[in-house]
This record gives sequence, C-alpha cells and structure tokens, in this order.
Amino acid sequence: MAGDHDLVLERTLNAPIDLVWEAYTKPEHLKRWFAPRPYEITELELDLRPGGIFRFRMVGPDGFDTGHGTPGCVLEVIDRKKLTWTSALGPEFRPNEMGEGCESFPMTAVVTFEDASGGRTAYKAVALHKDAADRDTHEKMGFHDGWGTVATQLEELAATLAVKA
Amino acid sequence: MAGDHDLVLERTLNAPIDLVWEAYTKPEHLKRWFAPRPYEITELELDLRPGGIFRFRMVGPDGFDTGHGTPGCVLEVIDRKKLTWTSALGPEFRPNEMGEGCESFPMTAVVTFEDASGGRTAYKAVALHKDAADRDTHEKMGFHDGWGTVATQLEELAATLAVKA
Repeated sequence: MAGDHDLVLERTLNAPIDLVWEAYTKPEHLKRWFAPRPYEITELELDLRPGGIFRFRMVGPDGFDTGHGTPGCVLEVIDRKKLTWTSALGPEFRPNEMGEGCESFPMTAVVTFEDASGGRTAYKAVALHKDAADRDTHEKMGFHDGWGTVATQLEELAATLAVKA
Repeated sequence: MAGDHDLVLERTLNAPIDLVWEAYTKPEHLKRWFAPRPYEITELELDLRPGGIFRFRMVGPDGFDTGHGTPGCVLEVIDRKKLTWTSALGPEFRPNEMGEGCESFPMTAVVTFEDASGGRTAYKAVALHKDAADRDTHEKMGFHDGWGTVATQLEELAATLAVKA
C-alpha cells in the first residue's frame, strides 16, 4: 500500500481497539486530539459513511487559522478496522478546489487499527499523495512530528474513555 | 444532488435493468458502448469495488488518442442501483495528477438506475465538477451529445444481451 509518494506513521497505542476507534470516529472526541497542541480544533464535522463530510477548522499560535476549512469526504469505513478519507473530494464525492497552506495539495488518509496484545492497538496512518513533490511538501510541513504528537493525544484521550466506561 | 456545477443526462432506456446493469459493469460490454462512435475504447479496466481501478483508452478520428489514460477509481457500487466513480482519485483512492484534454479537470460521475414500466430502465448520469468553469469546459467539449450518444449505444448493447439470454 505505502509507496514512494506516501508518508507513514505507525504506533502501538496503549489503549484497547474499541476505545481507539471510538476516539477516532466520534466527532466530540476526535475534536479534542486531532490537532497537535497548542493548535486546536474549533469546528469539526464527520459523517461516518462513504460520501459523508469530513471538515475541521484548526487554529493556533500567531493567528494561525484554517478558516472553516475545505470539506473533505469519507471514502471507506470498516468498523474498528479501517477509516479512509480524502481532501481531493468533498461531500457526496464532488471534486474539491484546493485551498491554501496545509490544504494546498490533495491527500488521502488510510488509517488502520488492529488488536495488539495486552489491550493495546496497532495503529497505522498512511498519507497518499499524487506525487513526490506533494509528499515532500507535506513532510516539510511537519508530518512526522504532527501526526506523531496527535497519535499520543489519541492514546491519552482513549484512556480517559476507559475510565468513564 | 445535481447542483450548479453539474451536468445531467437522463434517459429512459428500452432495456430491462438487469441487462443495463450488466452492460454497464462488465468490462467486455462497457468497452463496446462507452465511446461515442466513431470513437472507440481500445483498453478498459474496471474493478467493481470502492478503491478499484477504472481506466480506459479512447481513440478516434484524426489520430485522437487518450493514451493509456489516467486511472480513475470506483467509489460506490450498489447492485443494479448506483455506480459512482471519479477521475480525481486513482486506484486505492490515491489523489490523481490531472492530465490533458478530456482528462484536464477532475470529475465524479454518479450513475443511477431504476426499474421503469414495460421492461425499461430510468437511467441518470450526473457529472460533478469542482466549479462552474470545469462544468462549462465539459459542456463545450460536447457533454450532452457525447453522453446522449453513448446512452443510445448502451441501450442497443443491452438489447443484444437479451437476445443472447
């Protein structure tokens, strides 16, 4: 799956797969971990079905603000196994006009989850790009730091769900 | 569904829905009607599942040739009801680099089929574009003539399948 034009983040999360899936797919949870702090998500829409909207607004230091964000769309949902979404298409699969900054190139994210021993979850996020230039742009934008930081935040959020359960 | 940025072709086909679906979804049939004659399809790949490849090579008069074509991808398959595919993404949902000519803008096609009276099929094909400029480009390229002509060819091909059945 992962090829020359891709970026990959793999991590074993110290949280059970049911809670990791819940933290990833419920908008009220996703909103709390999806931006690497001190950045934060102030608006988020996720309609968990192929063709459903995935849109978020990220704000941060020095007036950073993605605005309402270009709505992307969900492509594939396999319960507690896989979630695929893209910024290349909007709701109901309409092609998107690309935006600015981190929305300047189209990307598809393929996120997979697998049960690991000891109540842990093998988590893999692959970002697919159309070419090496877009991959490089994304990498220089801080892909590894950013996606790594939010993986830790995802793990922490999932753990708080366990306490509540 | 169809909005300002879309182009729509609607037609009641004189062929039963089972055969229309078969003519649309089996590569060996699709190849025979998908290009408006005298254009023809010389290569075609269709893997009928979300993320599966949809690629065709069209050749025609005066040396017209799309080459091997940019592979698009299937988004949604609902048996004898709906087929959605896009040129914005390639196999396994990777964002596509846009090509030239009729591949210069991304497009999503939403094709729906409904049983009509007298063994006929209500057929609707909607082309979704990212903006009005792409819609206009597609329209001037001859959308209505082209998609209308192939709808007739689809109807004829489906009828030959009935004779064989």
